[in-house]
Amino acid sequence: MSAGEGRAAAVIGLGSMGGGMAAALLRAGFSVRGFDVVPANLERLAAAGGAPAASPEAAARGAEIVVSVVVNAEQTEAVLFGAAGCAAAMAPGAVFISCATMAPEAVRALAARLEAMGIHYLDAPISGGTARAAEGKLTIMASGSKAAFAAARPALDAMAATIHELGDEPGTGAGFKMVNQLLAGVHIAAACEAVAFAASMGLDLRRVYEVITGSAGNSWMFENRVPHILDADYAPRSAVDIFTKDLGIVLDMARRGRMPVPMASEALQLFLMTAAAGMGRDDDASVARLFARIAPISLPEPS
Amino acid sequence: MSAGEGRAAAVIGLGSMGGGMAAALLRAGFSVRGFDVVPANLERLAAAGGAPAASPEAAARGAEIVVSVVVNAEQTEAVLFGAAGCAAAMAPGAVFISCATMAPEAVRALAARLEAMGIHYLDAPISGGTARAAEGKLTIMASGSKAAFAAARPALDAMAATIHELGDEPGTGAGFKMVNQLLAGVHIAAACEAVAFAASMGLDLRRVYEVITGSAGNSWMFENRVPHILDADYAPRSAVDIFTKDLGIVLDMARRGRMPVPMASEALQLFLMTAAAGMGRDDDASVARLFARIAPISLPEPS
Repeated sequence: MSAGEGRAAAVIGLGSMGGGMAAALLRAGFSVRGFDVVPANLERLAAAGGAPAASPEAAARGAEIVVSVVVNAEQTEAVLFGAAGCAAAMAPGAVFISCATMAPEAVRALAARLEAMGIHYLDAPISGGTARAAEGKLTIMASGSKAAFAAARPALDAMAATIHELGDEPGTGAGFKMVNQLLAGVHIAAACEAVAFAASMGLDLRRVYEVITGSAGNSWMFENRVPHILDADYAPRSAVDIFTKDLGIVLDMARRGRMPVPMASEALQLFLMTAAAGMGRDDDASVARLFARIAPISLPEPS
Repeated sequence: MSAGEGRAAAVIGLGSMGGGMAAALLRAGFSVRGFDVVPANLERLAAAGGAPAASPEAAARGAEIVVSVVVNAEQTEAVLFGAAGCAAAMAPGAVFISCATMAPEAVRALAARLEAMGIHYLDAPISGGTARAAEGKLTIMASGSKAAFAAARPALDAMAATIHELGDEPGTGAGFKMVNQLLAGVHIAAACEAVAFAASMGLDLRRVYEVITGSAGNSWMFENRVPHILDADYAPRSAVDIFTKDLGIVLDMARRGRMPVPMASEALQLFLMTAAAGMGRDDDASVARLFARIAPISLPEPS
């Protein structure tokens, strides 16, 4: 007796996160239609037992729950209100679960438009990475009306291990996510800078990892990303351009609010330099390689 | 049968860290003489069963092991080679355990001078805070000759839960400590900035703490310092001026090595602004109060 038995869901955006979330919904008994602009992602959905659709509108038709796992506010608006968008196909009482990272005011604008049509909007940014997406063990920072939570509940339970319920206003979840992204971006940049600084002293970088992960200088990101540097493996688990985007949103929000965020600003410049140097699509630990290009240090080479 | 039974140790610098370390040595059976410029710290040593001394030289006379817990290279040099310094009183074969945070090249210079006199030097910066100092559960990042380690061992075992043995060259331990301090300083500044950013959005700061400590944006420092902000308690566990000092050392080292460290540089500016605003001796989480002075946010008030 699974939570999704007999229920129809749609997933828009079937990349590394959305693909895993669709699989988690299928395992929970949902019938899942999905849409993505990349044909290979549609084939992967079909292989997992889902039904590829030709547009967001086609995917959403008849679904009680639509989960949108695209990258930003512009894509979310296109998914909802663009040509062959979801909004026109969704029935009153259905819920749109929006997982893209965006500014709270962008969330509020989208939610207001959708709710005027009688469709619920759950602001539901996600955290946890691709492995936990595939396991149905994400962390979701959610806010929205009681009705939106109620309608979304079976899908949330299928996709997440931790659901933070952060209030009844869409945009609050997004605010929490932006605080997390500010810290995550700063910590990745700092981890790469610290490893480069250690290399400039000629320290044994594996010992540095061992010592720091047991010390007060540790962070979740240091622990998670520095192994990529030690293994010289810059295949993107999460790309540099995710942080040029997310720290860009933080800086835009902060400027509008006349709020100085100097640490986030400096981190954004490092991600932009790394992207400018041609590594935007590589793993975000590539900030370490930026330092290695401009300073007389050597980092581990691929074995 | 304790490790220190019948052994004489000296502790120079009996503040929040050194005082706890002296107590740990006493519990392990060492006889401990100590020196500090603050009379109250000498009284505390006497109350714990140690013997106050009138100078570093007087404390060190007859000691097999001298533990120096002062704040920087200048003070360490004065403790060793200044008027009534330790070096003149120490016997060949004794060991000087230096815990101050300083640049590796400063360590190498001091170690060379002392070793020319036949006295061992262990480069042994510490991490863990005052509570773990008092419990004898510090982390020590140590480097030095095999003879220095052997001579220091009983005291290290009494003071530390974790002893990282980082090689036979004095200065390597200091290098690891500076990497840790770079990260620690950046993470404190980032934690304060993130809390201020969250406050600018009107988010519930206790929920922010709960969500972030379970997310990828977490750091050891976020988890440890943000409660000071939530409780509006800026009594110094570790002061702003510790980081103006330690990040200053990082920046000096990096400049000498022609190594850019932009994240550390930005964090140092925030600590300097906080110190300039009159909070240098307050808890390092006071960087959050700096943001509250210049931006339209409100942080928790003392209850």
